[in-house]
Amino acid sequence: MPKIVDHEKQKEKIAEAVWNVIHRDGLEHCTVRNVAKEAGLSAGSMRHYFPQQSELFIYSMRLVANRVKTRIESMTFNGTPAENVKQLLFQLMPLDEERKLEMEAWYAFTAKSLSDPELKPLRKEMNEGIYSACKSAVEMLVNTGAKPGIDVLKETEHLYALVDGLALHLIMAPERLTAEMIDSVLAGYLRSLE
Amino acid sequence: MPKIVDHEKQKEKIAEAVWNVIHRDGLEHCTVRNVAKEAGLSAGSMRHYFPQQSELFIYSMRLVANRVKTRIESMTFNGTPAENVKQLLFQLMPLDEERKLEMEAWYAFTAKSLSDPELKPLRKEMNEGIYSACKSAVEMLVNTGAKPGIDVLKETEHLYALVDGLALHLIMAPERLTAEMIDSVLAGYLRSLE
Repeated sequence: MPKIVDHEKQKEKIAEAVWNVIHRDGLEHCTVRNVAKEAGLSAGSMRHYFPQQSELFIYSMRLVANRVKTRIESMTFNGTPAENVKQLLFQLMPLDEERKLEMEAWYAFTAKSLSDPELKPLRKEMNEGIYSACKSAVEMLVNTGAKPGIDVLKETEHLYALVDGLALHLIMAPERLTAEMIDSVLAGYLRSLE
Repeated sequence: MPKIVDHEKQKEKIAEAVWNVIHRDGLEHCTVRNVAKEAGLSAGSMRHYFPQQSELFIYSMRLVANRVKTRIESMTFNGTPAENVKQLLFQLMPLDEERKLEMEAWYAFTAKSLSDPELKPLRKEMNEGIYSACKSAVEMLVNTGAKPGIDVLKETEHLYALVDGLALHLIMAPERLTAEMIDSVLAGYLRSLE
C-alpha cells in the first residue's frame, strides 16, 4: 500500500519541520504558515494532513516518543545487565544533532502541556513512555539477578529523574556536561544499587 | 527609602502576575496587556516598570532564583550533614502551590530560552544557580568529613540532574510522585555516596 506509506512520510516530514521551527524560533512560531514553509508545502496541503494545530503538535510530540522506541527496539544487547541498561539509557540522551532537535521539541511541548488544555491530556502519555522505559531497566536488573534486592518503584523514580535531568542539562549546558560525564554518572548510579 | 521599596514591591507583584498567567494560559499569553490586567495595573504603568517584554521576562525569571536563594539563606541547619543537605534540597522541590507556580514559570522560561535570542544569555545564569547549590551541598558532605572520598564534580552532576528531574516530574505527574517518595529517593542517594 504505497499511498499509506507516502502519507505517513509526509506527516513525519511535517513533524520534523515543527522540530526545526521550535529549534530556530520557538514553539510560539509554529504557525501553519511557518511550518508549511519549512516543510516546503502549501498551507492547504498542511491542513489536509493536520486540520488543527493541536493535531500537528500531538503528532510531532508522539513522533519523538516513537523514534526513541524504535531506536531502543533495534538495539542488540550483549553485555552484563548493568552495561545493557546503561546502553539503553544512552539512547535517551540527546548526544547528536537529531536527538537534540527531538529533545528541544519535547521540552517545548512539556512546558506548553502545563497550561494548554489541548496538550494537557498528552502529558500523562509523555510521562509514561520514559517512566516505563526506566522501570523496565530497573526490573531487568532485578530479574537477571544482578541487583535482586532493590526497591523497584524507588529506583525507577530515581533513574527517571536522573535521565530527564541529564537530558535537559545536555541541551541547556552542552559546554559543561559531556558524554563521558554522563557515562560516569550513570555507571556510578548503577554500581551503587544494592 | 520607602519609594524604592514600593518600586521593588510593584515589580514583584508584576512578576507574580507573569507566573499566574503562565500557569493559567501559558507563556505565549504573557502580553503586556494580559499581565497588566492580571496585576491590576494599566498598560502604561506596566511599561514604566518594564519598557520591554524581555525585561519583564528576565526579571520574573530572576525572581524565581532569588526566592529560592532567600528560602535557603533563612534555613537553620541542626541535623547531620546528610540530613542538612536533604533539607536544603527539599527547598528546591515544588511541594506547595507557591513553589509550583515558580517552577512552572521556570520551565516555561527554560524552554523559551532555547530559541529566544533575548532569553538565551540568561540560560547560563539560570543553570548556574541550582548547579552551584548542588555543588555546595556535595562539598558540604566532603568538608564535614561525612563523605570525604566522593568525586565532587561527578556527584554534583548527579545531584543536579536528580533535583531538576524530580522537580519537573512533581509538576508533571503529582498524582504519582509524592513528597515521601522524594524523601526516600534523596535519602537513598545520600546514603549510597561513599
